[in-house]
Amino acid sequence: MLKKTHIAVAQNASGRNLHVPVYTLGCGKPGPKVYIQSSIHGAEVQGNVVIHHIIQHLADREIFGSITLVPSCNPVGTNIKAGEYTLGRFDPVNGTNWNRGYFFDESAVLQFADEVKETDDIIKIKQDFQRHWQALIQDKINTDWGIPLAQRLNLTLQLVALDADIVMDLHNGPVSSRHIYVPEYAECEIGHFSVSHNILIPNRFAGALDEATFCPWWTLSQCLEAKFSRCYAFEKYAYTIEMGSQEVIDFAEGDTDAQNILAYLGEKEVLFDCEFTALNMTRYVTDLADYKTLYSDFGGMVEYVAKPGQLTKRGETMARMLNIDELDNANAVKEIAAPCDLIPILHFPSASVLSGTQLYKCFTNFRVF
Amino acid sequence: MLKKTHIAVAQNASGRNLHVPVYTLGCGKPGPKVYIQSSIHGAEVQGNVVIHHIIQHLADREIFGSITLVPSCNPVGTNIKAGEYTLGRFDPVNGTNWNRGYFFDESAVLQFADEVKETDDIIKIKQDFQRHWQALIQDKINTDWGIPLAQRLNLTLQLVALDADIVMDLHNGPVSSRHIYVPEYAECEIGHFSVSHNILIPNRFAGALDEATFCPWWTLSQCLEAKFSRCYAFEKYAYTIEMGSQEVIDFAEGDTDAQNILAYLGEKEVLFDCEFTALNMTRYVTDLADYKTLYSDFGGMVEYVAKPGQLTKRGETMARMLNIDELDNANAVKEIAAPCDLIPILHFPSASVLSGTQLYKCFTNFRVF
Amino acid sequence: MLKKTHIAVAQNASGRNLHVPVYTLGCGKPGPKVYIQSSIHGAEVQGNVVIHHIIQHLADREIFGSITLVPSCNPVGTNIKAGEYTLGRFDPVNGTNWNRGYFFDESAVLQFADEVKETDDIIKIKQDFQRHWQALIQDKINTDWGIPLAQRLNLTLQLVALDADIVMDLHNGPVSSRHIYVPEYAECEIGHFSVSHNILIPNRFAGALDEATFCPWWTLSQCLEAKFSRCYAFEKYAYTIEMGSQEVIDFAEGDTDAQNILAYLGEKEVLFDCEFTALNMTRYVTDLADYKTLYSDFGGMVEYVAKPGQLTKRGETMARMLNIDELDNANAVKEIAAPCDLIPILHFPSASVLSGTQLYKCFTNFRVF
Amino acid sequence: MLKKTHIAVAQNASGRNLHVPVYTLGCGKPGPKVYIQSSIHGAEVQGNVVIHHIIQHLADREIFGSITLVPSCNPVGTNIKAGEYTLGRFDPVNGTNWNRGYFFDESAVLQFADEVKETDDIIKIKQDFQRHWQALIQDKINTDWGIPLAQRLNLTLQLVALDADIVMDLHNGPVSSRHIYVPEYAECEIGHFSVSHNILIPNRFAGALDEATFCPWWTLSQCLEAKFSRCYAFEKYAYTIEMGSQEVIDFAEGDTDAQNILAYLGEKEVLFDCEFTALNMTRYVTDLADYKTLYSDFGGMVEYVAKPGQLTKRGETMARMLNIDELDNANAVKEIAAPCDLIPILHFPSASVLSGTQLYKCFTNFRVF
Repeated sequence: MLKKTHIAVAQNASGRNLHVPVYTLGCGKPGPKVYIQSSIHGAEVQGNVVIHHIIQHLADREIFGSITLVPSCNPVGTNIKAGEYTLGRFDPVNGTNWNRGYFFDESAVLQFADEVKETDDIIKIKQDFQRHWQALIQDKINTDWGIPLAQRLNLTLQLVALDADIVMDLHNGPVSSRHIYVPEYAECEIGHFSVSHNILIPNRFAGALDEATFCPWWTLSQCLEAKFSRCYAFEKYAYTIEMGSQEVIDFAEGDTDAQNILAYLGEKEVLFDCEFTALNMTRYVTDLADYKTLYSDFGGMVEYVAKPGQLTKRGETMARMLNIDELDNANAVKEIAAPCDLIPILHFPSASVLSGTQLYKCFTNFRVF
Repeated sequence: MLKKTHIAVAQNASGRNLHVPVYTLGCGKPGPKVYIQSSIHGAEVQGNVVIHHIIQHLADREIFGSITLVPSCNPVGTNIKAGEYTLGRFDPVNGTNWNRGYFFDESAVLQFADEVKETDDIIKIKQDFQRHWQALIQDKINTDWGIPLAQRLNLTLQLVALDADIVMDLHNGPVSSRHIYVPEYAECEIGHFSVSHNILIPNRFAGALDEATFCPWWTLSQCLEAKFSRCYAFEKYAYTIEMGSQEVIDFAEGDTDAQNILAYLGEKEVLFDCEFTALNMTRYVTDLADYKTLYSDFGGMVEYVAKPGQLTKRGETMARMLNIDELDNANAVKEIAAPCDLIPILHFPSASVLSGTQLYKCFTNFRVF
Repeated sequence: MLKKTHIAVAQNASGRNLHVPVYTLGCGKPGPKVYIQSSIHGAEVQGNVVIHHIIQHLADREIFGSITLVPSCNPVGTNIKAGEYTLGRFDPVNGTNWNRGYFFDESAVLQFADEVKETDDIIKIKQDFQRHWQALIQDKINTDWGIPLAQRLNLTLQLVALDADIVMDLHNGPVSSRHIYVPEYAECEIGHFSVSHNILIPNRFAGALDEATFCPWWTLSQCLEAKFSRCYAFEKYAYTIEMGSQEVIDFAEGDTDAQNILAYLGEKEVLFDCEFTALNMTRYVTDLADYKTLYSDFGGMVEYVAKPGQLTKRGETMARMLNIDELDNANAVKEIAAPCDLIPILHFPSASVLSGTQLYKCFTNFRVF
Repeated sequence: MLKKTHIAVAQNASGRNLHVPVYTLGCGKPGPKVYIQSSIHGAEVQGNVVIHHIIQHLADREIFGSITLVPSCNPVGTNIKAGEYTLGRFDPVNGTNWNRGYFFDESAVLQFADEVKETDDIIKIKQDFQRHWQALIQDKINTDWGIPLAQRLNLTLQLVALDADIVMDLHNGPVSSRHIYVPEYAECEIGHFSVSHNILIPNRFAGALDEATFCPWWTLSQCLEAKFSRCYAFEKYAYTIEMGSQEVIDFAEGDTDAQNILAYLGEKEVLFDCEFTALNMTRYVTDLADYKTLYSDFGGMVEYVAKPGQLTKRGETMARMLNIDELDNANAVKEIAAPCDLIPILHFPSASVLSGTQLYKCFTNFRVF
């Protein structure tokens, strides 16, 4: 029931193919299709452990639908060191974020919607649209002039994920608590995850896989509902899940993370009689526009006082900065105060910062789910 | 007549201000205001030599209007080494291109245009709009939450350039012939520069200084012309000039580059009786949409056969790639052919490439000016 | 009593001097001279906080002798980012470790010793030798052909430290417990520090400041003792102190570290009636030759199971490695066992490793002091 | 007659083996064994083209002895980008030069020499010593605690090269003319190469492959000659050949380089009736101690006036440095003069330099061969 293949996503300067492993679970029983990838940012490695535990839990289990698992999906970003750390967030040649080259084209959705007839049933629409979208991505990949490395990687993965009903992109923050990005239209799904901090993202494409997955379907449903005045529920879900801090793996925590995902798959009837369920816990929710970044106004050495996940009141100290030129006077240490009530979710992973460094990302105007 | 000041644009981890030198020429005589900066991308250093020669030529000369010169305008990007080369194109922390954080907001132009009256004369409109724009940029800089390093750098420079009528942003390509980006509406200016290869860019903002300079004024003029059905000529010009290859300075070539710029300033009556004039030469023009990038389909080691500036016919060899695993067979060397007639303008500066590397940027569908 | 100056140690590509702050405490009372520097490796920043606290404690206090404090002594290495982390261990141009360019020349000691007469008193010998050594370093710096960046930095700092009787070079490990390098001849000093893990280093020069400080004097004393068959005690002490993990500062821990150093200075009568004393604690000691590095035999993603400072028995699991290509079989996770009884002192700071990565450094054959 | 195999030299973070291709020419006819590798420094790629051309020339030719060719022998260093350039000179994790981890141990030679008997013939000595050396390297590789990445790479290659009589390690300089390192005892071989600039290196090990190859044999021959007062000629030759500038490949020049190597192999009777012979040309020779580095005393932007290979008289301008803070005064440009008569061989590849940068390496006290 567990199959393994490899797909080539790039070639290095030695002229050798760089491969991504693709594991598939399922034996042909009807049910939702699930796609889970990890480590598109090379230093964000905990998701690989989570996928390991998912496979351990499910290897001998009956699955309804299928689960495709793509650990360490970026063989370039995983393998670039700059000093002891992994330079995994962007292409070192040109700075391109490895997570911004997926495909979406609103006008292509509108054009497709134009041709849908009121009599078309939803299964036919799904099949046609998926085929349409696949052809568009294929055209992007196959051009006379070639395409950039990051984009080819993203589009190749997107093709593997294309028929999935549930997509999970496993990431990590720098020094971070666990949190999840959920599409606004799927807000009610939050209760099915055991994640304390939830960010609602609008139906707007900014380049990531979750958006590339749900934006086409959501846009299409909105078009068709406007056109035919009835509901089109494609039941497509896509999430970016941040599994704590980068540069670290932890097998015990990875098992907990895996169990949370299995609980969700139980809820979605990919698994029956699932022994794992969502926890009874406080869940905070904020809108993407209220998920704010605090930048340093000056350079220096920082102690991160406010810890990820810990409620901080307006005016409380978030960080202390040491200036090595002012040790003989009162400017030696500056305190950085919270500009409003907030929950810091993640902070910069180095004590040494220039001015304009992203010190913290914070929930503001948050509410309990 | 030559003044020097320094402005702080950032702070490093030692808590120290990083400064940019600002040289100003002019003695209060009426005339256009000129702003020239160089090296926003830290490895693109030839413009600094050009500014040196401009100062040498003009130190004792009468100037109408003023000339502000900002060499080496990015003290962060200028000073980051990765190996022997300068990692100057993007912020090494997050991959942000140092040349994409300038300010433009189309809706802010539309809103301003709404309030202009038919009786307002052009001088008043210019003053008001400039003040309006300055306030918007100041607001961007001064926020409770701070702003990113690259954006603060860009906005601080944009404020210095804000009242200029002529803006020149001096860059270099990787291995590159000289070329220039010209706004479509200013196509006729091409004849005043002695640059063989000219790219026409539309009135669309993509983040760079030239666009940030002309987009507001061009958008405003279009709005007002539509509103009042008469011509509003703000006479604002902005160019990105690519002075050959990065990582190299050449004083003799820098003097030629300086003379070309002085010829343009003579044309614009910043200088009178200027001894330099535009050359009689063949000038090629292409639209930005026809300035195309050729990406490698595979990885390997590349000989760049087609030289920058040299007309290449469809099917001719542009590059040869060696694959070190295939030296015992006919795949040892692959030839990469031109997909159409083209002029290569620049190529990648390293023989070692992954798949998806930008090998060449090329003029296609070009014409003689 | 607290003075601040700055010394220039390098120039950057903008042609600007890069300075190091030098703080001095003392009012001319007789006593030992102390020199403390921090952050010669740019990412090892906790020592700066320690120096801040030392200044806080001593600003208004009577000092016998003098204390020179040089925080953030490497303005180049402190300010190079590669991704979010500081690339502070080596010159990014050529890989030169910032901590290996200090001066020592055994033959110069022997030559000096040859000329010492039995009648010379120890004060005269100290003065002469120090002057001799200073001249040698000056000659190294002043050559027609110039010297490398790291070496100039090291030698400039060494000149500042040259007359010190006690030298402390404050470092951090990657993920590390606190530990200290102590010269073999000064083993009995271990009891005056409150550090659990102590490494005895032989009188052999390998490039670092502690060795560069004590090797000349120790070598000289050995020569003179052999020559004149009596004891020459120059009372020179030099230590490298590792203040926990890099990339992190912690003010509370920094105060504890400062108090430990003050306790030592109290012991050496730089301070009288010092309120801080060495703790009653278990101190482990090992020889440098028994401070061993465990390298990974393969590549993959690592969970560091054995924690710094925690006794690990032969055969116990130190680390687990995940191989993302083997998640469908028993090779998914490999366990790395301790090759002998050991105390891991530090481990690599990233979960992603190539084969041949320094996973752990460990005490073996250790004993209780 | 041309065979290809691959050997694994490392594993990356994806847990995958990194391979080096090994090509072998020869059909068992008696004759010298030749080993040629290229690109141990990843950005020095021209040698790969040279090996390609050697294979093209020899694929169908009779060879006496054997030729082992290892192009692109460092799969880690070849594939690390930092910006557009290849960070190929040192391990980006720790700064270790990829070309300094080969094995040599003088005491092991002395010990071996002790056991040689006067009656042993040279063939037996060669076999025994080679077996001895191989065992020592194997022991280095196989330890409980593992070994560093660069060292394993070096030792694995050294084992492949171990039985060779002629070793060539193909490198490039930054911006460089062609030059070669020749052991002092093999000075007369210079005439068999067509290389203008020749550096004589003493029989002292500093970590590179050429030294690791000839030092053991040369040391052994010296020991045995002292012991038995007769000549032991092991006829072992090892060279580092610098094939022009890094980051560039050129097929036409690569063919010329290949022909020069074939001429040498003809001279050594690996090839008979070789159509290539050494050129009639001026060859300059200097001792390694006279191959001097010129460091910059200050930082700034440099025009490299003196070109590689071009005789420069004492006091002539080698470089010009622009200081962007001094464009309003006479310090804008500083000239750097040659400290003595010299031939610059290579210079730094970037115009932007900090103080203490290796601007040039130069022949001084050179003579015509």
